[in-house]
Amino acid sequence: MAKQLTSRKENYSQWYNDLVIKADLAENSAVRGSMVIKPYGYAIWEKMQSVLDGMFKETGHQNAYFPLFIPKSFFSKEASHVKGFAKECAVVTHYRLKTNEKGEIVVDEDAKLEEELIVRPTSETIIWDTFRKWVQSYRDLPLLINQWANVVRWEMRTRLFLRTSEFLWQEGHTAHTTKDEAVEEAERMIGVYAKFTESWLGIPVLRGVKSINEKFAGAIETYCIEALMQDGKALQAGTSHFLGQNFAKAFDVKFVSRENKQEYVWATSWGMSTRLIGALVMAHSDDNGLILPPKIAPIQVVIVPIFKNEDQLAAISEKAEKIIQDLKKRNITVKYDDRDTHKPGFKFAEWELKGVPVRLVIGARDLENNTVEVARRDTLEKETLQMTDIGEKIDNLLIQIQDNIFQKALSFRDDNTYNVDTWDEFINRIKQGGFVRAHWDGTSETEQIIKDKTKATIRIIPIDEQLEEGKCILTGNLSKQRVVFAKAY
Amino acid sequence: MAKQLTSRKENYSQWYNDLVIKADLAENSAVRGSMVIKPYGYAIWEKMQSVLDGMFKETGHQNAYFPLFIPKSFFSKEASHVKGFAKECAVVTHYRLKTNEKGEIVVDEDAKLEEELIVRPTSETIIWDTFRKWVQSYRDLPLLINQWANVVRWEMRTRLFLRTSEFLWQEGHTAHTTKDEAVEEAERMIGVYAKFTESWLGIPVLRGVKSINEKFAGAIETYCIEALMQDGKALQAGTSHFLGQNFAKAFDVKFVSRENKQEYVWATSWGMSTRLIGALVMAHSDDNGLILPPKIAPIQVVIVPIFKNEDQLAAISEKAEKIIQDLKKRNITVKYDDRDTHKPGFKFAEWELKGVPVRLVIGARDLENNTVEVARRDTLEKETLQMTDIGEKIDNLLIQIQDNIFQKALSFRDDNTYNVDTWDEFINRIKQGGFVRAHWDGTSETEQIIKDKTKATIRIIPIDEQLEEGKCILTGNLSKQRVVFAKAY
Repeated sequence: MAKQLTSRKENYSQWYNDLVIKADLAENSAVRGSMVIKPYGYAIWEKMQSVLDGMFKETGHQNAYFPLFIPKSFFSKEASHVKGFAKECAVVTHYRLKTNEKGEIVVDEDAKLEEELIVRPTSETIIWDTFRKWVQSYRDLPLLINQWANVVRWEMRTRLFLRTSEFLWQEGHTAHTTKDEAVEEAERMIGVYAKFTESWLGIPVLRGVKSINEKFAGAIETYCIEALMQDGKALQAGTSHFLGQNFAKAFDVKFVSRENKQEYVWATSWGMSTRLIGALVMAHSDDNGLILPPKIAPIQVVIVPIFKNEDQLAAISEKAEKIIQDLKKRNITVKYDDRDTHKPGFKFAEWELKGVPVRLVIGARDLENNTVEVARRDTLEKETLQMTDIGEKIDNLLIQIQDNIFQKALSFRDDNTYNVDTWDEFINRIKQGGFVRAHWDGTSETEQIIKDKTKATIRIIPIDEQLEEGKCILTGNLSKQRVVFAKAY
Repeated sequence: MAKQLTSRKENYSQWYNDLVIKADLAENSAVRGSMVIKPYGYAIWEKMQSVLDGMFKETGHQNAYFPLFIPKSFFSKEASHVKGFAKECAVVTHYRLKTNEKGEIVVDEDAKLEEELIVRPTSETIIWDTFRKWVQSYRDLPLLINQWANVVRWEMRTRLFLRTSEFLWQEGHTAHTTKDEAVEEAERMIGVYAKFTESWLGIPVLRGVKSINEKFAGAIETYCIEALMQDGKALQAGTSHFLGQNFAKAFDVKFVSRENKQEYVWATSWGMSTRLIGALVMAHSDDNGLILPPKIAPIQVVIVPIFKNEDQLAAISEKAEKIIQDLKKRNITVKYDDRDTHKPGFKFAEWELKGVPVRLVIGARDLENNTVEVARRDTLEKETLQMTDIGEKIDNLLIQIQDNIFQKALSFRDDNTYNVDTWDEFINRIKQGGFVRAHWDGTSETEQIIKDKTKATIRIIPIDEQLEEGKCILTGNLSKQRVVFAKAY
């Protein structure tokens, strides 16, 4: 059939690109580095948004909206932040076009901005400039704000979802009276991200903190979750930053404490983006197409009738309608594909490509036997079931599929996580992919050398596990614990 | 108290600005012309989004996302569109900053874009450039797409919500095989907008089409809904455009018809924005603050306990908790304001300012009598009710309030709509505000002269009413029907 994918084995990278385009998730646009998120891809994003937004609100956060444009001078206010962000960004310099004498549309040089505006790559600066007005007293704290927005980071090499100049995300920005409370918030939100990624996207994650080289520009500590893709490369799925008082000092955000003293506010920020859709594709899918966890799939069940004539279709449709009603009552999203323009085989392939977790097929014989054929996308297994209690059976099956997708990804990660103690072994393992747990002397220099030699970076420094002394794989110097290396997206 | 508003009578414009800021809806930002939408204002927008999004999906539309940046050349492709939009817009010319020898952050002139990018003022051009790839055959149509996004139109004079350089909106873009189908879609969506504005926001609207002078740049016909604000000025609440084949021709979007012929696609676009929050404020609110229709209010009921000591508070809280559970079961959003930092009078004023439709007050005597004091925000009436069936009583009250808010706005509009037949009367009426229904000779020239002399524009040409011949108020020339004039936001 026409939509054949490149296989993962043949070319994983090409398989990913093919799949994103052929499953109608996204495509490149006429604007270099910017993608169009197609309806099917956007429906996944909407589901992600809806779940995350609920989790944010449950943890006391409120949404707000801040300007797209940030005055250039704002970026200079936090020294380390500017290094990380102000460089590769879209700069607005003019606010008008005009028609020139040749009739062409050109920039009107008379409409040059006094101060250039930066299209936000992240919003700490504009938000902290605003927080100054919102915070006077400890009574105004904590301030727990989230924003759903588009951001732009100029990228030379882009890949759909994984790295695009413009992407969609949420960014949480919170302000607290104490350091402990801010640290707790940063940890809480990485916990929310971990729960979302594991329970909804079915992707197991390692949780930890970033090394100095890898942490967010302007953060004291960056908490993160890392997932392993099927090609053995890591993908950072979400980050949560403890920002200390850096932004409060840069933007002069103080509060009067209970003790009536002026103090700087403590801050966090945290974000997840459309990049997660890329992770979702790469973590689970196979050479037939997407495999979507039921809890995040825009369509959870598709019903395909097999009929020779209108009468058969009518009889099958009547049966299907009962199933549809039953599934809808259970909040299961179902599509009835009764198109007469395509053959069943074409439909099967199309819904496999799109990763619909369960396919039901009803033919003439099923009507006689009061049965339905049930196919699972994750295992490609089929079985014929009695119609009795079919809604409940499918409900249970969706739970099983959700669990199986997670377990499969977890096994894959376990099978591809290695403790390594020598440099030679390290080089070899990194080449083959996977998470490599090794000792490191804790210096930025060593990390940089390892990166230069192997392309591997420290994905996380674990925080949930017992320390274990050892010797750095590169320098042989003392190490307090293993850290997790991998090549990463 | 501190949050006293300017009265509407004294200065309507100042009243509006005060109210938006004091009710915590929005504030001006450090970026000229861009606002910060605060959590309370954003919560209203989220409710609007949620309802509209549901209505779009019910009518078969899907969401997608297109790039923020549009290549400058795209704007030149549709001649009338460029006149309306390409002029006052934010232009991205560079993609990098650098630190200069003085240590300042400056634009890197080596990173100049070959072609400037325009921050989208509306997305017809980029979307139609994309639709070319999505449409081959009549089977691909209709294409019913919506986008939730931020847009930028450079504005010199800005007002919170009503006119800001950046605003949030949704823009629908659809493609059809026939003219009739596209016209039907444009009419369907203005119908959706009218229903939303009347049934949810409680604002009655006039529905009609725009004159040539007022229609969208690139449209054949602009359908619109117009609302009347309390100061007698009109506000355009939503527009839906029949675009003919203009964009299909400009971006070469053709399809193969059932008859196997290549034809250009027919188009519509339609949008509603955060401007509606401004309309909501101006249509209903009073000198005490916001009056929000229950169906769109982020908080529908507030409960304020009146207590002298902890024991009383505990007893009242127990009672309140029962009400809260009852209301929540009915999907009523309720806030229990048991802050001990503020007096009841302060709380009453605060929730009035924020427009919460119903306030419940429970004091010690209410406990004895099994009663609760119920205050309506719309009429400021109070009554003491027995607790029995209190959930149902409040449920019904919210319905009454929703209806009353609409009826009040409708009466106001009716009282401020005039049939006028002479020029002197016209000038006089326009000065005083309101919708003025008058005859017009149908020419752009006459409309322009009337605008220059009176600041009034044709808000709508009615489409739902019987034609009535008459003479143009300015020229005396023949007119086929009355049109609706007003000064407008």
